[in-house]
Amino acid sequence: MNETVLKPSVVRVPISLGERSYQIHVGSGLIDEASSFEDLACGQSALIVSNETVAPLYLDRLVATLIKRHRMVHSLVLPDGEAHKHWITLNLVFDKLLQLQCDRKTVLYALGGGVVGDMTGFAAACYMRGVPFVQVPTTLLAQVDSSVGGKTGINHPLGKNMIGAFYQPLRVICDLDTLSTLPPRELSAGLAEVIKYGPIADMAFFDWIEANIDALMARDAATLAFAVKRSCEIKAWVVGQDERESGLRAILNFGHTFGHAIEAGMGYGAWLHGEAVGCGMVMAARLSHALGLVDQAFLSRLESLVQKAGLPVVAPVLDPHDNVGRYMELMRVDKKAEAGAIRFVVIDVPGQARLQAVPDELVAEVIGRSCTES
Amino acid sequence: MNETVLKPSVVRVPISLGERSYQIHVGSGLIDEASSFEDLACGQSALIVSNETVAPLYLDRLVATLIKRHRMVHSLVLPDGEAHKHWITLNLVFDKLLQLQCDRKTVLYALGGGVVGDMTGFAAACYMRGVPFVQVPTTLLAQVDSSVGGKTGINHPLGKNMIGAFYQPLRVICDLDTLSTLPPRELSAGLAEVIKYGPIADMAFFDWIEANIDALMARDAATLAFAVKRSCEIKAWVVGQDERESGLRAILNFGHTFGHAIEAGMGYGAWLHGEAVGCGMVMAARLSHALGLVDQAFLSRLESLVQKAGLPVVAPVLDPHDNVGRYMELMRVDKKAEAGAIRFVVIDVPGQARLQAVPDELVAEVIGRSCTES
Repeated sequence: MNETVLKPSVVRVPISLGERSYQIHVGSGLIDEASSFEDLACGQSALIVSNETVAPLYLDRLVATLIKRHRMVHSLVLPDGEAHKHWITLNLVFDKLLQLQCDRKTVLYALGGGVVGDMTGFAAACYMRGVPFVQVPTTLLAQVDSSVGGKTGINHPLGKNMIGAFYQPLRVICDLDTLSTLPPRELSAGLAEVIKYGPIADMAFFDWIEANIDALMARDAATLAFAVKRSCEIKAWVVGQDERESGLRAILNFGHTFGHAIEAGMGYGAWLHGEAVGCGMVMAARLSHALGLVDQAFLSRLESLVQKAGLPVVAPVLDPHDNVGRYMELMRVDKKAEAGAIRFVVIDVPGQARLQAVPDELVAEVIGRSCTES
Repeated sequence: MNETVLKPSVVRVPISLGERSYQIHVGSGLIDEASSFEDLACGQSALIVSNETVAPLYLDRLVATLIKRHRMVHSLVLPDGEAHKHWITLNLVFDKLLQLQCDRKTVLYALGGGVVGDMTGFAAACYMRGVPFVQVPTTLLAQVDSSVGGKTGINHPLGKNMIGAFYQPLRVICDLDTLSTLPPRELSAGLAEVIKYGPIADMAFFDWIEANIDALMARDAATLAFAVKRSCEIKAWVVGQDERESGLRAILNFGHTFGHAIEAGMGYGAWLHGEAVGCGMVMAARLSHALGLVDQAFLSRLESLVQKAGLPVVAPVLDPHDNVGRYMELMRVDKKAEAGAIRFVVIDVPGQARLQAVPDELVAEVIGRSCTES
């Protein structure tokens, strides 16, 4: 008697970018499924790039799946963490590709979080001026944020993500099972980006997150699945209208201007990106409030949700002698800055955001308040 | 009484690449002409990237012209030569851009030869994931080759141009006056790429070069102007059909597979790129002859013209113990290689080329013959 083999249910989110369109697959057990990768370009060789934390957990399984597709499946394990997202680590990928004599049809697979994804994507964009790559994000943050939009790159000592490329993957495979091994801090960091989609685009989703924050923190599979799917849909909707960030796309950086300053000021890796964004969203909401755009009630809701997600809401002091000055200096190299003027994503009305320049005095006041208040 | 100011005559070659289309201006005195840069995107600041050889000759003049357009015109002078076309030098550009807090609208100007153009273009492609750039090529090779097609990048110890991007400039300004200061070796190196366009696309142009080789070597302005214009037109025609080198564009690499092996094997900078290509074309023509595609008469014409252009026609011995093996090893990392098989641009009939895999024995024979014959 034949048993019906039930394939795990997979949700597919299409990302429409003309000839660079691709799909995000969201589901359980996808790393082990040959069908996750079917219909994709397939050179003779593959290089899986991962890190020392993720590789012991999932590398063998991905190799086992990919060896059915490629004649040779190589791997490279990088050191873990934002502190390694720089030229020297990136060059390890190029060294490996050239040592292996990988050609233009070699497929790169990014197995890990946002750092692995950003560096592997940038390596794919630059190696022989572009080879195909597939993202297999294993953190919530990477699944809901870095997997959509094609932003790749590395940090420079003077600024985060300052060197990079817009480069789209062939596909993104979000295996929800990988979230079970995520450290609590990283789960929270991912929730920061999930929460973000509410104030900038969809307050109904914000309501849903508020109602489900306990289930999300408890890693309930179905709840996480919806959070990932809806986040990717919203990001896809934004990116589809503005692939190269000439306008609307900038709203995805809500909380990121303050957040990048915190990350750079504390030294990359001290605060997780999501932690800095969580705190940065509260600061950006305060700025919106100071501009008279949103009311105190919205501010309190956001702060409370960020806190329930296990994220910091008190900003760090970056320089005891001139804290505001240090924040300003770090924010002036932000990619959204123009001619030295810092521009912020502010909440216009809850569910809608825009980019605008803000007087330095107002920014200074918010920084001062955020570093002492809870 | 008003005098009529005669503007220098400028030839404009349009490069049609959809929204990435741009123009090449060819003429005399263009560096000093504000009109060379009119109608271009224009941020508050500009960074001119040049090298230690070219900067003393033309940097001040370009600054004087650009200061009418940008509020701030910065410059960065890099060490000269192919040996510096790597990460470390590229990072100097990023360091400078970030130290100056340059934003996304900053325009990069590449003032120099192919190395400056390739590195500046790649820096522009990657800085904040893309800022505008303008090419001001000052060598014949850069004017007829690197100025069309958007190939940017750097070398890796294991291969030339292995890391880079396709990235189009806003405009290319070929000021023919800059060719007057070119060392004789560099003039010859540029002529290699001019000659190349004959066998691969236009034998009437080849006839013209043969008839005018003495005037070209004597740097006659009108003759050089036509050579630059016609070369750009042919390259534009090829690139317009295949921007990302999936097919036809590969023919532009005639002579380059052998040439890259010579450059890498001798150590970047020992042979100029054009010198290696000149010798490489003779080798590739011999390969075409060995395949029965072209006759001895064509081979002799090409070899004679390459020699008259002041270029080497005897290939260097790269390894006295296993010369053929060393050539093969270096050619296997060529970007046109697929699954370990080296592919060569061969001349099908004079004026028409194609890419094809060639048996190793035949390649070995041509290498052996080319390293001893003149």
